[in-house]
Amino acid sequence: MGQNMYRRDDRDLRFVLKEHLDISRLLKLDRYREFTMEDFDMILSQAHRIAADIIAPTFQDGDREGCRFENGRVTAPRSFHDVWRVYREGCWFALASKTEYGGQGLPLVIAEAAQEFFMSANFAFGCYAGLGPGNASMIEKYGTQALKDLFLRKMYDGTWGGGMCLTEPGVGSDAHMVTTKAIPDGDLFRIQGTKTFITSGEHDLTENIIHLVIARIEGAPEGAKGVSLFAVPKIWVNPDGSLGESNDVACVGIEHKMGLNGSATCVMNFGENGVCRGHLIGKSGMGLAYMFDMVNLARMAVGLESVAFGANIYANVLAYAKERVQGVPFGKKGIRVRIVEHTDIRRMLMNIKALTEGLRALVFKAYFMEDLARAAATEEERKTALGRLEFLTPLVKAYGSDRIFEMGREGIQILGGYGFTREYPVEQYTRDCKIFSIWDGTNYIQAVDLIGRKLNMEGGKIFRDWKDEVLALIRKGRTENRYPGEFALLEEALETITEIALLYDSLLKEGKPDLVPLTATRFLDCVAEVAIAHLLMEQALLVDDKLRNPATDPADRAFYEGKIHTAGYYLNNFLPQVFGRARIIKLQNDSAVRIPEDSL
Amino acid sequence: MGQNMYRRDDRDLRFVLKEHLDISRLLKLDRYREFTMEDFDMILSQAHRIAADIIAPTFQDGDREGCRFENGRVTAPRSFHDVWRVYREGCWFALASKTEYGGQGLPLVIAEAAQEFFMSANFAFGCYAGLGPGNASMIEKYGTQALKDLFLRKMYDGTWGGGMCLTEPGVGSDAHMVTTKAIPDGDLFRIQGTKTFITSGEHDLTENIIHLVIARIEGAPEGAKGVSLFAVPKIWVNPDGSLGESNDVACVGIEHKMGLNGSATCVMNFGENGVCRGHLIGKSGMGLAYMFDMVNLARMAVGLESVAFGANIYANVLAYAKERVQGVPFGKKGIRVRIVEHTDIRRMLMNIKALTEGLRALVFKAYFMEDLARAAATEEERKTALGRLEFLTPLVKAYGSDRIFEMGREGIQILGGYGFTREYPVEQYTRDCKIFSIWDGTNYIQAVDLIGRKLNMEGGKIFRDWKDEVLALIRKGRTENRYPGEFALLEEALETITEIALLYDSLLKEGKPDLVPLTATRFLDCVAEVAIAHLLMEQALLVDDKLRNPATDPADRAFYEGKIHTAGYYLNNFLPQVFGRARIIKLQNDSAVRIPEDSL
Repeated sequence: MGQNMYRRDDRDLRFVLKEHLDISRLLKLDRYREFTMEDFDMILSQAHRIAADIIAPTFQDGDREGCRFENGRVTAPRSFHDVWRVYREGCWFALASKTEYGGQGLPLVIAEAAQEFFMSANFAFGCYAGLGPGNASMIEKYGTQALKDLFLRKMYDGTWGGGMCLTEPGVGSDAHMVTTKAIPDGDLFRIQGTKTFITSGEHDLTENIIHLVIARIEGAPEGAKGVSLFAVPKIWVNPDGSLGESNDVACVGIEHKMGLNGSATCVMNFGENGVCRGHLIGKSGMGLAYMFDMVNLARMAVGLESVAFGANIYANVLAYAKERVQGVPFGKKGIRVRIVEHTDIRRMLMNIKALTEGLRALVFKAYFMEDLARAAATEEERKTALGRLEFLTPLVKAYGSDRIFEMGREGIQILGGYGFTREYPVEQYTRDCKIFSIWDGTNYIQAVDLIGRKLNMEGGKIFRDWKDEVLALIRKGRTENRYPGEFALLEEALETITEIALLYDSLLKEGKPDLVPLTATRFLDCVAEVAIAHLLMEQALLVDDKLRNPATDPADRAFYEGKIHTAGYYLNNFLPQVFGRARIIKLQNDSAVRIPEDSL
Repeated sequence: MGQNMYRRDDRDLRFVLKEHLDISRLLKLDRYREFTMEDFDMILSQAHRIAADIIAPTFQDGDREGCRFENGRVTAPRSFHDVWRVYREGCWFALASKTEYGGQGLPLVIAEAAQEFFMSANFAFGCYAGLGPGNASMIEKYGTQALKDLFLRKMYDGTWGGGMCLTEPGVGSDAHMVTTKAIPDGDLFRIQGTKTFITSGEHDLTENIIHLVIARIEGAPEGAKGVSLFAVPKIWVNPDGSLGESNDVACVGIEHKMGLNGSATCVMNFGENGVCRGHLIGKSGMGLAYMFDMVNLARMAVGLESVAFGANIYANVLAYAKERVQGVPFGKKGIRVRIVEHTDIRRMLMNIKALTEGLRALVFKAYFMEDLARAAATEEERKTALGRLEFLTPLVKAYGSDRIFEMGREGIQILGGYGFTREYPVEQYTRDCKIFSIWDGTNYIQAVDLIGRKLNMEGGKIFRDWKDEVLALIRKGRTENRYPGEFALLEEALETITEIALLYDSLLKEGKPDLVPLTATRFLDCVAEVAIAHLLMEQALLVDDKLRNPATDPADRAFYEGKIHTAGYYLNNFLPQVFGRARIIKLQNDSAVRIPEDSL
């Protein structure tokens, strides 16, 4: 059994939910009327405890033991089986799913807050736990009543798992090019093809696995429109719900990876013997559209994973910095101090703290929008919330996943030589996170999604509305003469991203598009930093009010003061990167494009 | 046996040595008069071949197999033993050491060029190979004739290895605080203490290991002045050179690490039974000063390791990018292309290429200075070269080690999902390199060394002379009206670092020192980028001349064109980061210092 490295707390998460976003507003909506804030609190406390006591002890185990592949069978790390049992007993699989088929019906902000704890504890385990309910929610949304009755309960309660089978050996980002075939066979389809990088494609945690497989129905048109979605059980499920024969779904290997070693990444063969059957989900030709529903959720989850890793990296290195005595402070002589007293260590601590809290503000703002998009009272509110969610999603995914790798770096550096050892958990988080910038659409794909699609949604209205909201806060700050330096930076940064967006427009119109993909990832980072700076300044004004209020609990004051410094740090140390990047973008250097291939 | 992943070439390295630095100048110096350029070429070709054919096949082996620790013995990966034999047969251990005791007497630029190939192939092996000759060179420089006769030949020829024993459990960056004791015992000293993180402290590649141990002679003053250096053999060496009894040197454990798994990182106990004997090296109280001689070499080596890793990461991902077909170019429709045709992939390729070539220019410039510092004809020339070397060393160490981790990130991203697997070598380079920013003085220590010591050497003359050299190139560019955009950026960047240096001065004078350590690492990056930009522009002017010359070999033209684009890319995409960082430094935000510890 590995060491328990779960040290993070829940203070900032509760602040974001209850004080910043004020999720009590959700309780007024029909969908969540049955709940109380006490329910939410209880769920979060339980989740925090399960993460700390049950999941976290598997963090090192899963990495060291890894998954075993033998004769087509995959064995998950031993300790994961115990956690699976606890999950089943506590119904932790389908927190946000509707209650009709066994979900808990919680708002996403609560369900994902619980996930944040779980992901901090051991995300390799979460890779198994998330896919059954994830696939089930697709069947719930797009499947027939018969399929729902057949699959959902056992997928929501952890009896069956799930695999999301999209990627093929030659088909990664090009999802519309899949070659896996689906041959009509009565009401069903015979599935034939190979899928790679299938997370939880095969394992021994559940008696069955219900795959969602993207395939092309024989004779369907080329490209995206020919692609459909199928539910393909590992073991056939009879109409009465009992398990039938093996369904010709074979795992032929697992990847040996840099990280997430406890999570099985499988190469899957469907229909090697021609007897793999699948159920069409929804309409034929709609496979990619459906799948992207799930991919969007996964993109949000990447941001959450980054927050969760950041939170526990921070807690671990902060504890170390408060204990480790080394070195004399800069410019002083004499006595050695704990390294938390060194300015450079504080800089690195603040880098992790500000990024984690900033990302958390962004991620939960987006989840809150998703809750409103599902449950707000009016169509107008739902639509506005959905637009904002769609705008924020690429920022959450790409900015989060690139920053968490950097936070890992900072954490290792704070630990010094010990950071390079497996005694401390940071190196493992750093290895585990490296896939985040790649899966569910590479970060470049996110940047192109932002520029090509999100900026122009509804003729640019979504983007403008967001900018107006940022501007409104800047005006409020100015009117009330609060944090003038920070708001001036935010205003300049907002203007800067507007300028770059205009530059992109004109370049595209002039037929000089190369600069856009060349600098797209930089632009996404700029927009994300403005978005985070905006939310952190909202938080700063909020806690500033609380600190001025003599009725504020003294126990909360240290936390609130921390929020103000964190906002100040982010605005002065991360946000100004926007200006440096803008300078580079405006130079319009295209050496990378012009260099001949032979000169590379 | 793992796969052979050695794909890098030697074209840019030969360019740097022969065309940019023109090392043929060394042949005129007394010390190197015996050599010819043909000798150098032959050595480089052989080293390249040994790296590719002998060392590289151990890269994955060493990582997967790792080191075993059992009953005080450490077993190095099996395949390393074969390489050791080849090294011994070819006399590859002590290329730059004087010939008197079996070294090859080569200039550093050649010896380290060979090392660059070896480090690309498998640096975990290099950790063992480098320490024997490294320790020997210290004994050669500071030891008595008797000690030289006793130790040197067998350390230079690979019969014996070495360990550099500085760090203790509570003593990392605080080297002057070591607690290991040395108790006078006739002409010898009895050594007692524990050392941690000792690379190659124990292994089975050699019949003996001669440790250099930093310890405090009983009764010596506190702090740095009480620290001395000792040669402590694992097995006692009798005056006639034969091996005697075990010397009470015990390895009590090895670290389990993120990377460099083939290299044994040991916890060493000296004198557990009170019978560990050591020879004092040089004068008592000079231990740290001597050790820093070796540390400075190690800092340079970190830069070289970064270049070496970058070169092979680049070669591997470029080959992949030229083969992998995926996606349609931005803004186009229709046919899928090889990913090397995608703008964003080219951006990432150029990030790795420009950083690797830029760092190589910097590293070998510094090694060239070291050669001149050892062998130039006049004292004045030697002193000037030494000053420049000392100025460049922290840049080489810190900028190199931080960038190589980012290059690893870019390489993994280019490979997509495959980058996260162990099938490709980039994840291993990324893991292996993570210690570089920590060992041999953390990167923060480098930044403080730059600001606190190097900028002020000789009353600032060393810094001014370097800036004058950069300015002279800018003037040349302007006079000849070449690359005006790039030279304007270089001039602005040079002015910017001068401004920051002045700001630091005034802050220190005003008694507000916090901003200096808060932003020191950023400042170091700025200076390093100006230094690299300067060298890349020198290269650009040089190849530009060659391209204009009709006599230039057509086979070289693609390479030269690449150099021009690489310089353009670096100047427009890396150098302008100076302006963004300067903006942040000038904001003088000190939230990280002001935040109360309870609010962290």
